[in-house]
Amino acid sequence: MSRILIDGGTIITMDEDRNGEGGIIEDGQILIEGQKIKKISEDRNEEIVKADRVIKARNHIVMPGFINGHTHAGMTMLRSYADDMPLMKWLEEAIWPAEQKLTPDDIYWGSLLAIIEMIRAGITTFADMYFEMDRVAEAVEKSGIRANLSRGLIGIDSEADKSLAEAEEFIHKWNNKTDRITLALGPHAPYTCPPPFLKDISVLGKKLGVPLHIHLAETRDEVEEIREKYDMMPVEYLDNFGLLSRPIIAAHCVHLTSREIRMLGENKVGVVHNPQSNMKLSSGVSPIIELMEERVPLALGTDGAASNNNLDLFEEMRTAAFLQKIMKKDPTVLPAFDVLNMATRGGAEVLNLPLLGQIKPGFYADIILINRESPHLYPGHNPVADMVYSAYPSDVDTVFVNGQVLMEKKEILTVDENRVLKAVKQRSSLLKEK
Amino acid sequence: MSRILIDGGTIITMDEDRNGEGGIIEDGQILIEGQKIKKISEDRNEEIVKADRVIKARNHIVMPGFINGHTHAGMTMLRSYADDMPLMKWLEEAIWPAEQKLTPDDIYWGSLLAIIEMIRAGITTFADMYFEMDRVAEAVEKSGIRANLSRGLIGIDSEADKSLAEAEEFIHKWNNKTDRITLALGPHAPYTCPPPFLKDISVLGKKLGVPLHIHLAETRDEVEEIREKYDMMPVEYLDNFGLLSRPIIAAHCVHLTSREIRMLGENKVGVVHNPQSNMKLSSGVSPIIELMEERVPLALGTDGAASNNNLDLFEEMRTAAFLQKIMKKDPTVLPAFDVLNMATRGGAEVLNLPLLGQIKPGFYADIILINRESPHLYPGHNPVADMVYSAYPSDVDTVFVNGQVLMEKKEILTVDENRVLKAVKQRSSLLKEK
Repeated sequence: MSRILIDGGTIITMDEDRNGEGGIIEDGQILIEGQKIKKISEDRNEEIVKADRVIKARNHIVMPGFINGHTHAGMTMLRSYADDMPLMKWLEEAIWPAEQKLTPDDIYWGSLLAIIEMIRAGITTFADMYFEMDRVAEAVEKSGIRANLSRGLIGIDSEADKSLAEAEEFIHKWNNKTDRITLALGPHAPYTCPPPFLKDISVLGKKLGVPLHIHLAETRDEVEEIREKYDMMPVEYLDNFGLLSRPIIAAHCVHLTSREIRMLGENKVGVVHNPQSNMKLSSGVSPIIELMEERVPLALGTDGAASNNNLDLFEEMRTAAFLQKIMKKDPTVLPAFDVLNMATRGGAEVLNLPLLGQIKPGFYADIILINRESPHLYPGHNPVADMVYSAYPSDVDTVFVNGQVLMEKKEILTVDENRVLKAVKQRSSLLKEK
Repeated sequence: MSRILIDGGTIITMDEDRNGEGGIIEDGQILIEGQKIKKISEDRNEEIVKADRVIKARNHIVMPGFINGHTHAGMTMLRSYADDMPLMKWLEEAIWPAEQKLTPDDIYWGSLLAIIEMIRAGITTFADMYFEMDRVAEAVEKSGIRANLSRGLIGIDSEADKSLAEAEEFIHKWNNKTDRITLALGPHAPYTCPPPFLKDISVLGKKLGVPLHIHLAETRDEVEEIREKYDMMPVEYLDNFGLLSRPIIAAHCVHLTSREIRMLGENKVGVVHNPQSNMKLSSGVSPIIELMEERVPLALGTDGAASNNNLDLFEEMRTAAFLQKIMKKDPTVLPAFDVLNMATRGGAEVLNLPLLGQIKPGFYADIILINRESPHLYPGHNPVADMVYSAYPSDVDTVFVNGQVLMEKKEILTVDENRVLKAVKQRSSLLKEK
């Protein structure tokens, strides 16, 4: 097994067992052996002899890769295709008709574009829900990134049974094929999954042993519809099928009653907060402080590029913090460390990937190096605050996933980036004509 | 006079007299002669013969430089020095004691750091209110950026008269020294400027013929204090001194009555919106939609790096749009073009710099080139939406101010960037010890 040494830098380990917020080590070393972190030393020059290769990290932050808890990678094809529109008009007149035109190849190239953008932003794992997932999995496999993939399932049209069969086939095909891909079933949302369909999904999920990835309580309209139809709230609707006791990746969770927040906490349902998408589509503000009080596992997500419009957890972290501060009229709530935690450890918990989100011996070597030699990161009084409130994707220099270097000194090593840009440009211009 | 040609690219002229939002020209040319824009042609290859130098802009957005309507450049020294604290504790226990320690040289180097950060982010003009303004002006002069500078004036301590004398001396010294520097008087805020002091400032401002730059209606506490002391609202307090009919750069304007909004509109008082600072300090949400309805001139600002924590109007644009959408529960309000307008034309109007904010013959050549060859700007369906919702400072490639190239292909030409970084690092570490 090859051994790589990351030498020097300010390591924000995020290791819960170390002292201080973030468990910071100044000028330490990380030895990677194969796919995992073998050893961390608090001094330099200790481990150099053992390494096949040394990557210098002086003047860098070294930290766990970000985990994007909710996105639709293929939607990069529709970035800036339609903005500033009312939600239903945006979906019905712009996004859905455009998605009808997307070919499997479009999804492949659009997903590769998203993956390159995410690697460049220090995202090493993402949870995706879309269609043509075979092609998304191929893009994940090729690029070297880590992902949890789910075929989106809508039970209110004629494709319902077909999509469920596709989802099952997809899971069988990719299960255990690579340790970088985990799988889920993707019931789209309570309002698009009527009881019999959700029951089928629940049974299938149990049989296959996979979690569910779902949009939950995203809009006021959804809450109204579920209440009118079933006389219950969206979280209660899931509970009705026994789903809360199962692993769930619940995106958004904007409109919740206190009872629902308690239910999420008691069942340790993983929630993915997508503040920029929620703001841009004016869906509402997720009650993050209340969810934290009930110890709900919390991740951060970008949502798709059509409603964000970039795949960047740096911005998502500061937006999350700013949004809670302004809504609670209290600048002390959701401080920098808490959102950094959501973007790393929280993501690992929500995605059921216990060996991610921390730099710790035995954990997967999903590690990013962030260059601090830029005016906007100077003078550098506080590395955690600098990462959350000032840093950009462009500061990310080197990215490891599973011990493999996917980007080094800003060069993507696993995919031909220019070819991807060219393919996406060509396909997207056809998209408008088709 | 030297002639530079910007050749090709997608020009977002922001010219009000051209058709379509942003007055976009595909693959056009801009001829710069001396400090100004001489000619714009809608075809390529027309003007090349006339130019001494050609800058290729293929695959770039070419647009007016951003105008940062409110900041405190020297505060970069205090970036990530203290965050997530209650406002008064943050000021009294962290920021003000630290500012006491800042030397004139600290302000010089801190301002240069801010200016480099701003040039890198495509900001070509900024309005600054701080102290040791002589040193800030020197940094502006050296760097080649454009600025409106004001000495902050607080009338409730023993330094009141001294600071007013300093402000006058500063204005005499720098008036007409360079056409890149304009001046203002900087009464800090209604609650720190009691009536006699504000009257003195008003008289002095009239005598010197300069606008006032003031923090106005930023926090609920300020409104309470002014109402209790004077039985009026902050805008009425200014009106009481006849200040509304004079040029004012009014930062924040968060807490306003409908009457005050009308007064601002009738008097065309320029308002600078600083959404990220307002969110981070939980000051409140400025009623931007209502201000637009009353046709109040609107600019965007970053505020200081201690409460933001970066000097970046790309982020400020999207945060402004997102914040109004979520507060108004309507995704159609404050669309992309309106915030782009605030960051360019609006800034020019608020800062009383009528020959800025548009790419138009006779206007100053303050122009930025933004590289579109990045995954997060692909596929590029809509250039305005891409600039507002997806772009980063790192996409800015080349920056002109007053016809001079300040940055070319990401290299700062007027200042030794490494020397600035080094000086700031050294000085900021002393800051903690002093």
